[in-house]
Amino acid sequence: MAEVSADLYVEVLRYYAQQMSLLDAQDIEAYVETFTEQGVTHHVHRGQKLEGRAAMLAHARQALPRYRGVVVRHWNDNYLMNEADDGSITVAYGSLVTLTEAEGIVRFESTYAVTDVLVRVDGRLRARSRTIVRDQPAAG
Amino acid sequence: MAEVSADLYVEVLRYYAQQMSLLDAQDIEAYVETFTEQGVTHHVHRGQKLEGRAAMLAHARQALPRYRGVVVRHWNDNYLMNEADDGSITVAYGSLVTLTEAEGIVRFESTYAVTDVLVRVDGRLRARSRTIVRDQPAAG
Amino acid sequence: MAEVSADLYVEVLRYYAQQMSLLDAQDIEAYVETFTEQGVTHHVHRGQKLEGRAAMLAHARQALPRYRGVVVRHWNDNYLMNEADDGSITVAYGSLVTLTEAEGIVRFESTYAVTDVLVRVDGRLRARSRTIVRDQPAAG
Repeated sequence: MAEVSADLYVEVLRYYAQQMSLLDAQDIEAYVETFTEQGVTHHVHRGQKLEGRAAMLAHARQALPRYRGVVVRHWNDNYLMNEADDGSITVAYGSLVTLTEAEGIVRFESTYAVTDVLVRVDGRLRARSRTIVRDQPAAG
Repeated sequence: MAEVSADLYVEVLRYYAQQMSLLDAQDIEAYVETFTEQGVTHHVHRGQKLEGRAAMLAHARQALPRYRGVVVRHWNDNYLMNEADDGSITVAYGSLVTLTEAEGIVRFESTYAVTDVLVRVDGRLRARSRTIVRDQPAAG
Repeated sequence: MAEVSADLYVEVLRYYAQQMSLLDAQDIEAYVETFTEQGVTHHVHRGQKLEGRAAMLAHARQALPRYRGVVVRHWNDNYLMNEADDGSITVAYGSLVTLTEAEGIVRFESTYAVTDVLVRVDGRLRARSRTIVRDQPAAG
């Protein structure tokens, strides 16, 4: 594993700016396009694995009503990036999710540790996998 | 519209770091200098348009007492940037505003969608316009 | 003082991504390694100065129990960077600290103004000093 170049670091920041904007706009068709066709999302804390864009899309459509009445935003920070010999990039970061209600009232939906593997398809970065772990204090 | 270069992307990130630091320090004279002389801010959710630095300054002076007793900070994320043929750069991002009271108590003043148009004046980036929309859940 | 290059700006962003990840993972041995051997942290709001890695480590070990039962995360923004003639880099930024409890409940531990001085040791950036001021509204 090697550190990515400054140019690639910025390209990855832009990938997330784009992807998170689509997610927060609930443009789920465009959002799943930021994954590879066979891309996988794994919500570890609820033991849920979605394999392929079609499965992600079906799940997202089912989840949308949960977010009626709020505007969702993802705030990510501290992106760690490493490039493997095959060119794939592992990106680990923290994510804070806000839910803004009418009148500007802000609620918070946990913080998360996310680890993605990005690959280049036809010149553009896409996520091959995403692993999401809700922050959970150690027992004791 | 084209994607900006990595170097320009970083320059724009620094523009915002500088501008938000001035805003949060309530150094409003220096803050309005980060706009063009005729720069416009449009607070869509309250139907307010301020045209030119003098109007921005007058408004900011009037608004300052609202922030007595708190420290304001802006936390922006997910900067999307596109460069037009004339060299102007449209930047869209999310903004979360914190208000920290005495004893470290943190309150939140909504989340916002902001869209700016930046231009270069004498070699430095300045905002020609800023459009701010307070996040508001869709009716229904 | 001069602005840093785009490449150095990104290198500093990565330094913080790495350092904050170590801090939030409570890997305090690796965290103090991101400072110089004689590095100093100054918590201005509680009048506490820790000089050298050994002192930082002793303090961190003593503070860990305070964070039992929560996951801590640091969210930084608006990094201002300036390079001095001797190559040291002064970095000023805002920091928001979240404490996530069981069941994804998020609490907030103030916002802070942080100013660091980074130097290069054996090719890698390390902090020579960190000055932390808890945000405190002006009296009146």
